[in-house]
Amino acid sequence: MGEQQLSLAAVRDALVREEDSIVFALIERARLPRNSPAYAPAAAAGGRSLAEFFFREAEAGHYQKPEDVPFFPQDLPSPVFPTTGYTKVLHSFASAVSMNDAIWKMYFNELIPLFTVDGDDGNYAETVALDFACLKALSRRVHIGKYVAEVKFKDAPQDYSPLIRAKDTSALMNLLTFKAVEEKVKKRVEKKARIFGQNVTLEENAGKHEGISGDSECKVNPEVLSKLYDQWVMPLTKDVEVEYLLRRLD
Amino acid sequence: MGEQQLSLAAVRDALVREEDSIVFALIERARLPRNSPAYAPAAAAGGRSLAEFFFREAEAGHYQKPEDVPFFPQDLPSPVFPTTGYTKVLHSFASAVSMNDAIWKMYFNELIPLFTVDGDDGNYAETVALDFACLKALSRRVHIGKYVAEVKFKDAPQDYSPLIRAKDTSALMNLLTFKAVEEKVKKRVEKKARIFGQNVTLEENAGKHEGISGDSECKVNPEVLSKLYDQWVMPLTKDVEVEYLLRRLD
Repeated sequence: MGEQQLSLAAVRDALVREEDSIVFALIERARLPRNSPAYAPAAAAGGRSLAEFFFREAEAGHYQKPEDVPFFPQDLPSPVFPTTGYTKVLHSFASAVSMNDAIWKMYFNELIPLFTVDGDDGNYAETVALDFACLKALSRRVHIGKYVAEVKFKDAPQDYSPLIRAKDTSALMNLLTFKAVEEKVKKRVEKKARIFGQNVTLEENAGKHEGISGDSECKVNPEVLSKLYDQWVMPLTKDVEVEYLLRRLD
Repeated sequence: MGEQQLSLAAVRDALVREEDSIVFALIERARLPRNSPAYAPAAAAGGRSLAEFFFREAEAGHYQKPEDVPFFPQDLPSPVFPTTGYTKVLHSFASAVSMNDAIWKMYFNELIPLFTVDGDDGNYAETVALDFACLKALSRRVHIGKYVAEVKFKDAPQDYSPLIRAKDTSALMNLLTFKAVEEKVKKRVEKKARIFGQNVTLEENAGKHEGISGDSECKVNPEVLSKLYDQWVMPLTKDVEVEYLLRRLD
């Protein structure tokens, strides 16, 4: 996001649009079964898993924007193509704020079993490429929290500054929490999973309300999206916001 | 696809499922403007465009299945991870049948202007990564034609063999063409673009039939999908089928 776009409305639009990407990516990943060998250490890759190997390869040169945070920053080569230089709207420490370790663990340990069927069809390279798309979209969504924090701080520095100076993490968290909004977000991602994950046919969906399939026919269970946002995505986004704010006056 | 799955129903399911991937990929690409500098030759990449550079890098190790056809086969390194060995259901020459040059030209010259807005926001790396997803899905869809041809040949060798021996391309093309089915496919991808590309909100879509937005609100114009399938995807798939069949008796 560039300077001209830094408004709460623009940040909210980015968050809403990212929901679509997350739902699309999960639906695509759900095409394949669990394929757990892709996540086990492999001798051919120096003891790394195929997932880790793929990420380290694929991350090269993809991280130019503050919301694009690498999973393996220590291995990033210099980009071959020059970046066009984003207007700096965030503080310089923003790049140090990363929840990717937590996102990585959550995705592989908690989320994958919830939306893939158990099984192994041998398509490991495809599997980790689809995981990559899911993790990138989730990571982008969570790290947009840096913009959320910056916008909210600029809007009301008098509310945030004393809490930042007092390092009052829980008061900051309270200030950033809007239960009613969070409930709406959960309902919306659930609805998106229901609409985007339906099997579209040319027949009229007789007896189905507004063309929306029953949850059991959806490619990813809509409740998984609601849970993903409730338990992980929104809390991690707020962790990003608090971590950013705590250093905002440095 | 493995041997146990090689039936016309399974191949059709794969084609229908690929439609979703294509629509998702185009919707995702449409987030960004045209970004044409990503497609211009760049000195930093030895005169290649960023798109070509990215593809050559990204293709390494991703091509294990017959429907996954590389765009730059000459540059493919050996995969680091062993393939699990697909049951060979296609003839050995199948890997030589590739429409990727035509798909590449169609995508960059014809399709991109139809579904991206003119403009340049500097996000070239992200742009070509999204192009990669579109092209991979399109290529996979077109090359599933190899399975279509194999299944149809096995179903009725007596119909195909004389035409193959006579190298009667146009009679083969006629035998593979079902206008009514093609019309249904066009309508279905158009409907998918309408459903998957809508802006989902929690409000009931008053006055809109079955929750489907007007075309102007869709992230990718549904007519673009219909045209894409009509003018390029289905003809190229049939080209794959004919090319495969012409060598089926070798």
